[in-house]
Amino acid sequence: MTDQSSNQMWGGRFAAGPDAIMEAINASIGFDKRMAAQDIAGSRAHAAMLAATGVITDNDAEAIREGLLTVLSEIESGSFQFSTALEDIHMNVEARLKEVIGEPAGRLHTGRSRNDQVATDFKLWVRDQFDAAEKGLLALIKALVDQAEAGADWVMPGFTHLQTAQPVTWGHHMMAYVEMFGRDLSRVRDARARMNESPLGAAALAGTSFPIDREMTASALGFDRPAANSLDAVSDRDFALEFLSTASICAVHLSRFAEELVIWSSAQFRFVTLSDRFSTGSSIMPQKKNPDAAELIRAKVGRIFGANTALMMVMKGLPLAYSKDMQEDKEQVFDAADNWMLALAAMEGMVKDMTGNRESLAAAAGSGFSTATDLADWMVRVLKVPFRDAHHVTGALVAMAEGRGCDLPDLSLEDMQGVHEGITEDIFNVLGVENSVNSRMSYGGTAPAQVRAQVQRWKEILAG
Amino acid sequence: MTDQSSNQMWGGRFAAGPDAIMEAINASIGFDKRMAAQDIAGSRAHAAMLAATGVITDNDAEAIREGLLTVLSEIESGSFQFSTALEDIHMNVEARLKEVIGEPAGRLHTGRSRNDQVATDFKLWVRDQFDAAEKGLLALIKALVDQAEAGADWVMPGFTHLQTAQPVTWGHHMMAYVEMFGRDLSRVRDARARMNESPLGAAALAGTSFPIDREMTASALGFDRPAANSLDAVSDRDFALEFLSTASICAVHLSRFAEELVIWSSAQFRFVTLSDRFSTGSSIMPQKKNPDAAELIRAKVGRIFGANTALMMVMKGLPLAYSKDMQEDKEQVFDAADNWMLALAAMEGMVKDMTGNRESLAAAAGSGFSTATDLADWMVRVLKVPFRDAHHVTGALVAMAEGRGCDLPDLSLEDMQGVHEGITEDIFNVLGVENSVNSRMSYGGTAPAQVRAQVQRWKEILAG
Amino acid sequence: MTDQSSNQMWGGRFAAGPDAIMEAINASIGFDKRMAAQDIAGSRAHAAMLAATGVITDNDAEAIREGLLTVLSEIESGSFQFSTALEDIHMNVEARLKEVIGEPAGRLHTGRSRNDQVATDFKLWVRDQFDAAEKGLLALIKALVDQAEAGADWVMPGFTHLQTAQPVTWGHHMMAYVEMFGRDLSRVRDARARMNESPLGAAALAGTSFPIDREMTASALGFDRPAANSLDAVSDRDFALEFLSTASICAVHLSRFAEELVIWSSAQFRFVTLSDRFSTGSSIMPQKKNPDAAELIRAKVGRIFGANTALMMVMKGLPLAYSKDMQEDKEQVFDAADNWMLALAAMEGMVKDMTGNRESLAAAAGSGFSTATDLADWMVRVLKVPFRDAHHVTGALVAMAEGRGCDLPDLSLEDMQGVHEGITEDIFNVLGVENSVNSRMSYGGTAPAQVRAQVQRWKEILAG
Amino acid sequence: MTDQSSNQMWGGRFAAGPDAIMEAINASIGFDKRMAAQDIAGSRAHAAMLAATGVITDNDAEAIREGLLTVLSEIESGSFQFSTALEDIHMNVEARLKEVIGEPAGRLHTGRSRNDQVATDFKLWVRDQFDAAEKGLLALIKALVDQAEAGADWVMPGFTHLQTAQPVTWGHHMMAYVEMFGRDLSRVRDARARMNESPLGAAALAGTSFPIDREMTASALGFDRPAANSLDAVSDRDFALEFLSTASICAVHLSRFAEELVIWSSAQFRFVTLSDRFSTGSSIMPQKKNPDAAELIRAKVGRIFGANTALMMVMKGLPLAYSKDMQEDKEQVFDAADNWMLALAAMEGMVKDMTGNRESLAAAAGSGFSTATDLADWMVRVLKVPFRDAHHVTGALVAMAEGRGCDLPDLSLEDMQGVHEGITEDIFNVLGVENSVNSRMSYGGTAPAQVRAQVQRWKEILAG
Repeated sequence: MTDQSSNQMWGGRFAAGPDAIMEAINASIGFDKRMAAQDIAGSRAHAAMLAATGVITDNDAEAIREGLLTVLSEIESGSFQFSTALEDIHMNVEARLKEVIGEPAGRLHTGRSRNDQVATDFKLWVRDQFDAAEKGLLALIKALVDQAEAGADWVMPGFTHLQTAQPVTWGHHMMAYVEMFGRDLSRVRDARARMNESPLGAAALAGTSFPIDREMTASALGFDRPAANSLDAVSDRDFALEFLSTASICAVHLSRFAEELVIWSSAQFRFVTLSDRFSTGSSIMPQKKNPDAAELIRAKVGRIFGANTALMMVMKGLPLAYSKDMQEDKEQVFDAADNWMLALAAMEGMVKDMTGNRESLAAAAGSGFSTATDLADWMVRVLKVPFRDAHHVTGALVAMAEGRGCDLPDLSLEDMQGVHEGITEDIFNVLGVENSVNSRMSYGGTAPAQVRAQVQRWKEILAG
Repeated sequence: MTDQSSNQMWGGRFAAGPDAIMEAINASIGFDKRMAAQDIAGSRAHAAMLAATGVITDNDAEAIREGLLTVLSEIESGSFQFSTALEDIHMNVEARLKEVIGEPAGRLHTGRSRNDQVATDFKLWVRDQFDAAEKGLLALIKALVDQAEAGADWVMPGFTHLQTAQPVTWGHHMMAYVEMFGRDLSRVRDARARMNESPLGAAALAGTSFPIDREMTASALGFDRPAANSLDAVSDRDFALEFLSTASICAVHLSRFAEELVIWSSAQFRFVTLSDRFSTGSSIMPQKKNPDAAELIRAKVGRIFGANTALMMVMKGLPLAYSKDMQEDKEQVFDAADNWMLALAAMEGMVKDMTGNRESLAAAAGSGFSTATDLADWMVRVLKVPFRDAHHVTGALVAMAEGRGCDLPDLSLEDMQGVHEGITEDIFNVLGVENSVNSRMSYGGTAPAQVRAQVQRWKEILAG
Repeated sequence: MTDQSSNQMWGGRFAAGPDAIMEAINASIGFDKRMAAQDIAGSRAHAAMLAATGVITDNDAEAIREGLLTVLSEIESGSFQFSTALEDIHMNVEARLKEVIGEPAGRLHTGRSRNDQVATDFKLWVRDQFDAAEKGLLALIKALVDQAEAGADWVMPGFTHLQTAQPVTWGHHMMAYVEMFGRDLSRVRDARARMNESPLGAAALAGTSFPIDREMTASALGFDRPAANSLDAVSDRDFALEFLSTASICAVHLSRFAEELVIWSSAQFRFVTLSDRFSTGSSIMPQKKNPDAAELIRAKVGRIFGANTALMMVMKGLPLAYSKDMQEDKEQVFDAADNWMLALAAMEGMVKDMTGNRESLAAAAGSGFSTATDLADWMVRVLKVPFRDAHHVTGALVAMAEGRGCDLPDLSLEDMQGVHEGITEDIFNVLGVENSVNSRMSYGGTAPAQVRAQVQRWKEILAG
Repeated sequence: MTDQSSNQMWGGRFAAGPDAIMEAINASIGFDKRMAAQDIAGSRAHAAMLAATGVITDNDAEAIREGLLTVLSEIESGSFQFSTALEDIHMNVEARLKEVIGEPAGRLHTGRSRNDQVATDFKLWVRDQFDAAEKGLLALIKALVDQAEAGADWVMPGFTHLQTAQPVTWGHHMMAYVEMFGRDLSRVRDARARMNESPLGAAALAGTSFPIDREMTASALGFDRPAANSLDAVSDRDFALEFLSTASICAVHLSRFAEELVIWSSAQFRFVTLSDRFSTGSSIMPQKKNPDAAELIRAKVGRIFGANTALMMVMKGLPLAYSKDMQEDKEQVFDAADNWMLALAAMEGMVKDMTGNRESLAAAAGSGFSTATDLADWMVRVLKVPFRDAHHVTGALVAMAEGRGCDLPDLSLEDMQGVHEGITEDIFNVLGVENSVNSRMSYGGTAPAQVRAQVQRWKEILAG
């Protein structure tokens, strides 16, 4: 019961006086240990560079680099003893390195400081998450493209205001989300490219008088170049803010699809059946299937954008260069990243597993005079009736059908000609739901042929 | 390295397929175990009521109530084995209770459901935090009142736009924050009173056909009354939202004072010296004292309001009654509560420990012609010069003093009479900084006598 | 096309150089003129007090007070010429007063400053909005109570996860929102009481040396008392933050109900018919009715909480006393207040006009084995079967009914006794939907009798 | 007094009943008229395409295109009568077009709908704002580069925690902001490229059966291509969200610099003198200069991120395709754009006009033993003393200097050798502030030569 007891301990520590309070508010080791691998990678690159530029000896560098691998393996195996007194991951690693290799450990900190070190570690961590998000998005897009291909010609209602407007295809609806997640992917890549500059060697804030080679460490750590201003390099948290805003927009997309899945799973809609794996049941109502995963995904946008809000407020109005306020950056990003990745994986799983209920979709697609627009468009296109007049005639025919309790295709040709004499037999070719969707062949339209073309385009991108 | 490895494990679990993902997104035991004590208190009250109303036997109730105490002591001692497969704290406790007492455990769930149970537990937890906040606020107010009393007549600059405007007193400045935290206290009390209605017995959402006595459980748990609508009782998270907005406004106050402490600690201001306990030093610059605690407190408003934003977004547009989205409520409130309490304690500690630098404050108070307003007011009050004319004369005198590189009191009476002949010797009684603050005797003004009156008023409030 | 051209003008003004930019960013008259009535009321109270305390003559006070009424009538009639060069409403009024009454106008500013004046005006404006919100909430609650009374015994599905869980009554569902808006009302009243302290006479920040009577102006303006610390009085914007957070929580409630109305209006649900007045149609599909008002109300929580976020960020970390940042407070509150009042009025109108579709509601209430819980509870209550066992038997019966494509009451007694021999004829008394809701007589439960009791309670409150 | 009276009118309209309320909440013409030019450009491109594809005649297209120019000139001249009854800009323009050209106006709406029309108009508007932001950022960067060049070698304190850490140069500090605004520029360009796809022709949501050419209209309107999915095209508001998040991050940068300018303008710092044009004075204290523009810029991040929050909440959980909630998008973006552009222009103006106080900066740079790090680094570099030992020696020397009330360079060589015998005369070459900054020649460091190199790099980019 870690959390509660740590909280009770706080109570105790508070009672124990100000020192305990300061430790509680000041120490970051409780969360920044997640950056251990990044910290060690950064230090190993720095040590190699210090040797290459003659600042330290090759022997010292070798000892440091080997010692750091030892520390890393201790951490990975779980045998490492983290100390809150040592405050953060950087001091924990350095202290242990000193125990392992002795005096040369003291030379590692030459030409850098904790400010550029923490910025480097955190950037590496965030960069990894951009990469993970890219993978998650690609997997989700693939699952959607597969659904779209399978149901490229399944008809369903296209809604505005949650009211049936026009028939669309299942594949078209799936591909709408492919476009959204495709933009998310593009944002992830842009943001990753923009943030890929190395803070290492910015030192405390002013740079250093040691003849370091920042290009070399940047390159060793996979950065495109060193950051061009040392004050900015230690003060900048744009990469974290852009990570959070990118995640937030993606989370909006996830929430929209999740909302649809919740509504579509209702007994009233029955458009989709979610798998048991992503639902929970009731011991008493075996037919009941709660869309828990969809609801939780819908909620994640709150958590992720909450983290975005938090860091925006923290950074507001902070003078240069480093202020301790910035220590609040990591927990927000860690939590948002964990939940973003989880939501992407859960959505991918749900999409893969879900079954569109083709009959329910088709039945709903045809209700509500959903092809009224097709009738009006046919009159404009074929009879050259002005648009607004065509709408008037169509409205009269819909009212007639509604009065008789039938659908538009159930009206006779004579009935229709009684409203507008120019109408011909040809009209019945546009009134069916299938005809309707097949006719919408404008680029990006809902016609199955258009959907398949977009499926093909995305398959090539995914194969890319 | 719990967090990182759990994250790595996620990777593994994701690879292991959808079941692992669903468990990761669905289970709440990782955080809701913090409500164990509340859960058990609620169940014990429920069991007693079930017996009193004849729904279960006294023997069963006794077995349940004793068994729950056993479970509680296991949790408190750390020997309890939490199971993720059992999802949440409620199922964990119930399952263990069954092991401990056998069949009667199955009767505990009569006339309630997990929906009202979780609402009850969470309300009890939040109520405890309101109580903790009240204590923290009272302690902080006391520390500020003590500072105010000690420095009721220390002069310092009153700023607008961070520019010296008029002299004020240290005590007056401290008491401004007492008013702010006093309003926070008032908000805490109002919110606590408003939320103190018991959801227990609302059952899943519709109430129950068992002849339960909701007044009895409400009373046993310290609630003022049962909630009046069972649908609302399980759908409502207002208490959490109001907790977060109350905490957020308080955190704004903390951030304002923290900002002042950071600025006042700068070498350029030197208005205050923070204790070593709430600062960190530099191994190389022993005189340097970084106001880390103040900076971290300043940042906490981001985190707390971020939680507020998160839960607002989660609750937006949720249909009644319970939706799984609402499971996202607890982590936000837990984190905000922990950080609010910590920030209050740290601020109290800093205020107690800090030393106002009386000389620096006084020197700054007198600079910048800070008593120009007093001169103008004197002309209005004594010479009956219209307000705008008095300003004109004062501006001319300030310009004269500035030109000579001296302060207003250094001008001779002749100099002054050259600008306005009505000025008399009496003017020198209002130009001094001490005179200035002493003169501001309007209710709530900065005069030491006014400050002491407010100190006295608050001491009586604190004495209760 | 005011807005666009003002924007184009900005372009021009920017080109025209820095003075135009400064005027654009600095002037507030474009929005703070909304506080004209409050400004004049504050000045009239101040003038009367200055005369009563002998600071100015009765004649001057009378001239000022009459002159201000003249200015007010000019503003109300639209003949007043606002000047951007005079920056804000306070200077605009004062300048016009000088034209109207001449020299005595110069004495009005004695013993106060723009800082306490703007705080007073803004508080008076916000207080009016709290009063307007109270009226709007009471009207909405009344409309809901009327709906609840009319449909106290209409059955409908009670949802969790948007899946049918148990039958409830229409009246019960309406009364759930009455509880929510009732809490909003309580928050509005608490916040109004808390903020009702007068800043007037705090002057620039330090109070004043004039012998003013702050009790007198406070009382004249309907404040409960003067604010107790002059620094706080001019720095405080808690009342605006609490207004925004109170509005935000209410807007969450509105968004939840609006979401339900959108879903309930869908062709798939058909639970409710909204009036034409709060819907928009389609020229081509006469039967289509888009729930525009509900959607716009659902969206308002974004706008209102956006304003809350904005002002939280503005206030974060501001040193005392007045900073110009605080000028950003008014537009946020104005916009949020306008939209809150509008959303309350629109929701009230929709609720009054809407028609619950009793047959659709009833049909949906009985589907999905919604009375399975009743069956289980009956076994516990009557047969004394342990809770978990009762669930097991019920699950088996539901599965049997599902397999036969029938509902629970369609199973024969023999069928049931085949699963559990203790079941008797009496079981059929709990399986019907009507029986189900009637049985939930626990306090706050969904039984019509309980609903009517709550309707009665609220009618008395409204009559209060 | 437009705003207030419109509000009073609301009161009246509310009293007048539900129709007035619906009009108030539903109509958008009050704000979307700002998109008139975009609406007309979109319609003109659409008409030309309809003629090119043979859907309408060339004569009709010509009449429409000319008629739209007439309408545009009426709007630009201010003679256009906007009608709230016609709800939005699209209907207002179309109705007027019908008056101007008669029957052909009815053909304009062929093959499109209001949903793709509003998306197109809004995208064009936002795209213009991205272009305006690019110009504003370039101008601000230029102003900063000029300041940096002028003060490339002015020394000033580099702060961490607002405590002096190491000397830096004025130019280096200015260039830190150039990097930040440079990243903003990069974000603006990425976002603009990503959003540059045309929704026109997506029609209501499904595409159209008319043989339209979406490439042609896309190209005519400067889009890179048509959007690939018609459902997404009318449901997407990513471009607005990304505009807001990009603006928000930039506003954080503005707030940080604004905070520094406020602090630097204080009497205690005196690092910078702002021009009269961007400050306001006091009639009574002529020397007082309030940094109003800086404070207002600092506050703008609240307003802009408030808009971001608002639209995030609006879009959360919206099902496809169009929902009326989305009408709340425009006012948020309009307000954020106006304030972003204004803040950029005001900051550019302030930076151009401001004067760094070279002496104050230099005096502060040398205080606080700011070159202690240089001393330690010298020992590591020259004497090959381990890093941690060098720190220990330096601490001892600083303590010695502090005890004697002198600075480090004032200690004699003997004094120093008493602490560490290896220290030589050469040490005095690193203790001066000028020496310190000159020595920090690592890439991106604070040395004037490094600053000048970055200035040169940015000049080339700006010349670009």
